This record gives sequence, C-alpha cells and structure tokens, in this order.
Amino acid sequence: MTAASRQMKLGAFLWATGHHIAAWRHPKAHVMAGVDIDHYIQLARTAEAAKFDMVFCEDAAGLREANVGIASQTSRSIGFEPISLLSALAVQTSRIGLVSTASTSYNEPYGLARTFLSLDHLSGGRAGWNLVTSASPIEAANFGSTGLKPHADRYERAREFAEVVTGLWHGGASGHDGQSFSVRDPLDLPRSPQGAPVMVQAGASDVGRDLAARTADVVFTAAQTFEEAKAFYDDLKGRMAAYGREPDDIKIMPGVAPVVAETEAEAREKHEELQELIPDDVGVALLSSYLSISDLWRYPIDGPLPELPESEGMKSRQALVVEQSRRDGLSIRQLARHFAGARGHWRIVGTAAQVADELQARFEGGAADGFNVMPSWFPGELDAFATLVVPELQRRGLFRRDYEGRTLRDHLGLKRPA
Amino acid sequence: MTAASRQMKLGAFLWATGHHIAAWRHPKAHVMAGVDIDHYIQLARTAEAAKFDMVFCEDAAGLREANVGIASQTSRSIGFEPISLLSALAVQTSRIGLVSTASTSYNEPYGLARTFLSLDHLSGGRAGWNLVTSASPIEAANFGSTGLKPHADRYERAREFAEVVTGLWHGGASGHDGQSFSVRDPLDLPRSPQGAPVMVQAGASDVGRDLAARTADVVFTAAQTFEEAKAFYDDLKGRMAAYGREPDDIKIMPGVAPVVAETEAEAREKHEELQELIPDDVGVALLSSYLSISDLWRYPIDGPLPELPESEGMKSRQALVVEQSRRDGLSIRQLARHFAGARGHWRIVGTAAQVADELQARFEGGAADGFNVMPSWFPGELDAFATLVVPELQRRGLFRRDYEGRTLRDHLGLKRPA
Repeated sequence: MTAASRQMKLGAFLWATGHHIAAWRHPKAHVMAGVDIDHYIQLARTAEAAKFDMVFCEDAAGLREANVGIASQTSRSIGFEPISLLSALAVQTSRIGLVSTASTSYNEPYGLARTFLSLDHLSGGRAGWNLVTSASPIEAANFGSTGLKPHADRYERAREFAEVVTGLWHGGASGHDGQSFSVRDPLDLPRSPQGAPVMVQAGASDVGRDLAARTADVVFTAAQTFEEAKAFYDDLKGRMAAYGREPDDIKIMPGVAPVVAETEAEAREKHEELQELIPDDVGVALLSSYLSISDLWRYPIDGPLPELPESEGMKSRQALVVEQSRRDGLSIRQLARHFAGARGHWRIVGTAAQVADELQARFEGGAADGFNVMPSWFPGELDAFATLVVPELQRRGLFRRDYEGRTLRDHLGLKRPA
Repeated sequence: MTAASRQMKLGAFLWATGHHIAAWRHPKAHVMAGVDIDHYIQLARTAEAAKFDMVFCEDAAGLREANVGIASQTSRSIGFEPISLLSALAVQTSRIGLVSTASTSYNEPYGLARTFLSLDHLSGGRAGWNLVTSASPIEAANFGSTGLKPHADRYERAREFAEVVTGLWHGGASGHDGQSFSVRDPLDLPRSPQGAPVMVQAGASDVGRDLAARTADVVFTAAQTFEEAKAFYDDLKGRMAAYGREPDDIKIMPGVAPVVAETEAEAREKHEELQELIPDDVGVALLSSYLSISDLWRYPIDGPLPELPESEGMKSRQALVVEQSRRDGLSIRQLARHFAGARGHWRIVGTAAQVADELQARFEGGAADGFNVMPSWFPGELDAFATLVVPELQRRGLFRRDYEGRTLRDHLGLKRPA
C-alpha cells in the first residue's frame, strides 16, 4: 500500500452502557444494556454501517472491581460473556470484524483455538482473539486459590499458549508437547476463511511488547500524549525485525475516547455533564484498581499520589498513571476523576474537524495505524462518532467509504498466513 | 399437570450432516453442513415451527474418532463449537430451547457457569447445559498428557463442578472452597430469566444415575427395548426421593432414530438406502470406539463379539452393546452395521402412525417423558418428522400445538428454582 493510500483502521470498543465510568448515570443511559442483545446488535450495525474494521470486547471472568458496592456504581457491573455475544452478532452483521478478549491464564489452548475458529467460520472469516494474561486478583480467586501468578510466569505461559493456538489455526503442527501444554490432535474444523483468526494484543510491558512483536496482528494501547504514542509505536515496530516480520504486519491502534458535537461548546458541555456524575469514592476506587493497590483511600484525596510499591499487576499501566500525575501535578481527586472518565485513555473533546485533526496528526505522525474508539456512552456517542467524525475522515481520504474485502484480515490489510 | 393432559417433550438432536454414520454419503447430503451456519439456522427454525422443546448439541473438544482416515468417513468429522453455534441460533429463533454439551473435565466451573448464563440471557431464558465428564482418551490427549482419569474420579469432579455451577446460577452461595475447585465471587450477570439454565445429563452408570437424580432437570438416555427404557426410567425416578425431589422434577428423554415416510415400504427403502452406504471398516471402527477397545478389527468380522476387558470409558454404553449382541446372536459385522446406523439408539422405521404408536407406547407405558429425536440425515429426515409425525402426535393430544411459555423451563414444565 502506498503512503498516499494508507488509511486508518477503526475499532468500536463495546462496553455495556459506555466507557465513561458514570455512563450508567447519564439521563439517557440504558442501565441493563450489558444483557440486552438488541442493544449490542444496534451498536454493531451502527459500526458496520460506518465501515469500522471491527467491534471489540474486553473480558474478565469475574467482577471488574473487588468492592461490590463500588462495582455496582460502574458502567460494567454486568454483561454478556463475549464469545456468546459475538457469535450472536456474527449472524446479525455481514462485514464487520468481531474481536474478543480471552485469557491465557484461565483457558486451555485447544479449547480456545477451537472456539475462536468456530466464531471465525460462523462469521465467514471475521474473528479475532485479544490475548490477555489476566492481571486481576479478582479473577484469580474464581479459578482456584493459588492466587495471581507472577507477571513473568503469566507471560511465559501466554507465549506457549499463543504458539499452540496459532499452530492449531494454521492447521499444521499438531503434536505440541511443551512446558505448560500438551496437545496431540488437530482441530475438528477446516482452515479459517481468512487463513487464521486475527491475533490482537494489548500488553505494554517489555515482555508484553516482545510477545506482540512476535505474534500479534493488531496491538491496542493506551497513550495520553503524542510522544508516548510515538515512542510506543516506534519501539514495538522496531522489535519486529528480530522475529522476521515487517513493520506493517502489525496495526497499532491506541484507544481514544472522543466526545464530539456540532460545536466545541456543545462537546465540552456533554463531557462536563458526565464528569460531574463521577462520585469521588468510585473514581478513587477505580484508580486504586488500575494501580493494583488497595489502600489509596487512606491518603488525603487532595494530596499527591503516594510512592507505589512494586506490583504483579499491569506494570505498564501503572507507569502511565504515575507519569501523568507527576507531569500535571494532579491531586488524587483530580487524577481519579480524570482517569475514571476515560479509564487511562486519550480523550478528545470537540467538533468533528477537531477530533479528525487530532487523529490525523497521530496517524500521519507515525504514532498510530488506527484507533480503538471508546464512546463515553452508548448508543449516543457511537452514533455521534459515526455520523460526524467518520464522514470527516472519509472526506480527508483517511478512512474507507466502503469495505473492499469480506474478512477482518482483508479490512486490516494483513497478510493471509501461509 | 393431570395424567390426561401430560404431553411428551421433544428434542431435536443436531448433528452436522445427520445421525446416520453414512449420512454424508446420502445423495442429497450437505457435506460441509458442520460449518454452515445457514444450515443450522434452517434446522433450528424447522424444529421451532414444529414446537420442539429444544435443539440439542453434543460436544467433544477433539476428533470423534482416533483413526483420521475413519474419522473423515463419518458424518461428524468437522463442526462448530456448540456454544458459539447456539449463541448464533439464539438470535435467529425466539422460542425453542438451546441445549449444549460441555465437559466437567476440560472446563472450570466459573467460566462454564458464566458462558451458559450468558447464552441464557442472550436467548431470553432458553439455555440448557448437558453435563458430560468426557470419556474419550482422544480429548484427554488435547488437554495435557495425564491421560483419561478413572471413571469414579471424573464423576467426583463432576459432582463438585455441578454444585459450584448451580450455586453460581442460583445467585446465592459464592465462596466455594472444595476438593477440586475454589470460587470466591458471584457471576457478573443477573439471575437467569428462567431462574437457572436447565441442567441435562446422560450418564447411565450407577454413579452417573445418582448424579442425575441429585441435580438433573432432563436426562437423555439410549434404550433399544421397552424393557430397558422402563427399567432405566423406574430406577432413575426411584433414586430421586433420597435427594428430596419428586419424580416429575426430571424429564427422561431417550434418543430415538426415526425413519418415517408416507408408506411403510417407502420408509424401509429410505432406511436400507443409508444402511447400504456404511463401509464395514467404518462400522467396526465406530463400534470399537463405542466399546473403548482398539483391537476389535483383529477378530473375525463374521464371528461373535469377544469378551471385553474392564474399561474406564462409558461403562453403561458398553453393557448395552454387549447385551444386544448376545441377545440377538449378532456377528461383529451385523452389530457394527446395526449400531453404526443409529449409534446405539432406538430406531423406528415406518409411517407416521407407526412411529407415533411406538412413541406413545413408551410414553404412556412409563418408560419416557419424551424423546430426543435423531434424524438420520439433515434436513430431510427432520423435515419428515416435523411434517408427518408431529401432526400425528398433536392429533392424539400427545404434543403441544403451540408454545405456552417463553423459556425452556416453561416448555419442559419444570419448577423455577427458588
């Protein structure tokens, strides 16, 4: 693909009532959205009509927040298991990609490879797997009492897990006998309509980046500033040669939380309306969970973030929060509210032209191949992005006006595995 | 429900090209049916239009036959993973129940409980789980090298597994800390629209029957003769009082493989057409697999079945085959062909009236609460059952003319869990 014709990739990150922590308190919020299949069908069809590359679902096999009182005050206290959800969406859509998160810690590779390949066949070659190693001690407690495994061990298991899964998808090497897994037979399914389901990753630690450089087709990431995004982009693409891969073999798609309206004032008003709905205790609890520390509430809420102990949780995410708090001199309350709103992701508030300017700058500046769009509440902010920002990107030649292929790999411009 | 108004329950057992081993060789067979979602949507809609209680999917995470050459010559060498399949069918149907098999040996209870409850919400309360302990060494080899666990160990794990899953579904007792599993939190989903997904079982060994008597809502079984069916029915219902349950709390639904046509001669001709398509090596290989012995091919094909060693596979199934071979004086070839055709299930060949007579006799004779219908090939034999046998059963007042409720538990007349 020539530089002139290079176009950005877009994911629609689905999330019950919306990505904003207070989305469920929005006057138009659909509080039971997490278990309303018609709600999700509507979102997927909106994203497909706007020619998004994919819809994306996160996952965790357990509550997202240890404190049940707090969990009930977030926008994702309940929701469908994502494979069943995406399988339903597969037969209610025809072109858009369907990507789900699944854990290498609480699944077996034969079962996971089979389920995703089944979704791939159901959808005519539109499935993708977002590999996570599951950093939450809440999940660990639902899968035996052994507790959360050390970061390095989780990633060693994940590396072998990914090797087994891709081996099964590529239809060749059955007969894996390794450290954590032993798999004898091929899958009971034909080869994928797109060669193999798309492999997505989001781990941003050093070992996470190496795993992505080796095996990922798409990488989701969180970056507040252009410099952070660019540094991550260059670092990850730079690691790929060691695995015999070309930079364009991975599409890097940072998360973005846009709030868009016809005028800038209207966009700011919409944003403030949601920010004011965040209770302090929920904000601080979410920040605590992100930082994998349990006693943040002990510190003065208008004081600075304390020094953090070394954690076995998500190291890269922790570093990002600390860096921002020091850079902007934010109090715990300010940081909590700021992070709670977009959950650590990049936020853009403005008109379609303003949002498109910012996306274009990162895309053309070599800091992103596309974006994973995280609307603050559904369906309103997805509708706004689809009707305001997408046409603006299309006018600028930065985004497709129609699908050219039928599979997710086609949309993303990825090579078909041999 | 009074005796006069008691009506039979019907399941449509879906199975790629069809239940007959040679279905894929049928002149009208759809060889890629196993990965054609439109094929399955058509079958589910046919079953729903005929007011079946449920569609049912078996499952095994691996090839169904160790010998790949033989496996490729059966009617189920490839196919969708059933949770993804039924999730897709959930949004293409509105009333029929959706029951899938899943293993207690290769899953974790938190993940399985969550997936089935998600399917239950997707479908508005139409999901059921068929618990199996997975007796196949082929599956075991895809989930670590430890091999197939002894029958008693598998059932002990299954008993605890079922306890955790129903606890999670019933929304109460989180905090399980047992022999095999430790689960701390509740599920991240609301209570099921039908109280809890329906629990199905099919194990017919002594320990399997006890587990069913304790926890099952529906029991599938294989019985050739009325006496076998009646003995099983009385035995299982007799075990329920020990667990504080009433006989009607379980619906016992033996498998039945009907071949039906306008005339008896036509039905016989249809049946013979398929029987003649069974190659001897495939028949013997399938029989070997059923008996969990690998060297059946060493014995003279026109001689009797040899004495069988004790096996860790499906004990009850083995006993059934041996009993029939001795009773009817069948050679290995005859037994193989006989069993290959209906896979050990009861076969009825005849007109709608003849098929209805036989079903009615078992239903009214206290040997069945309904039947799991196993058409020899799809869609032809399901269509024939729906258009010929179902209206005949309706005329006799033995089967519903329309759904009265919305959930699977409603259709089956099962109590809603407290």
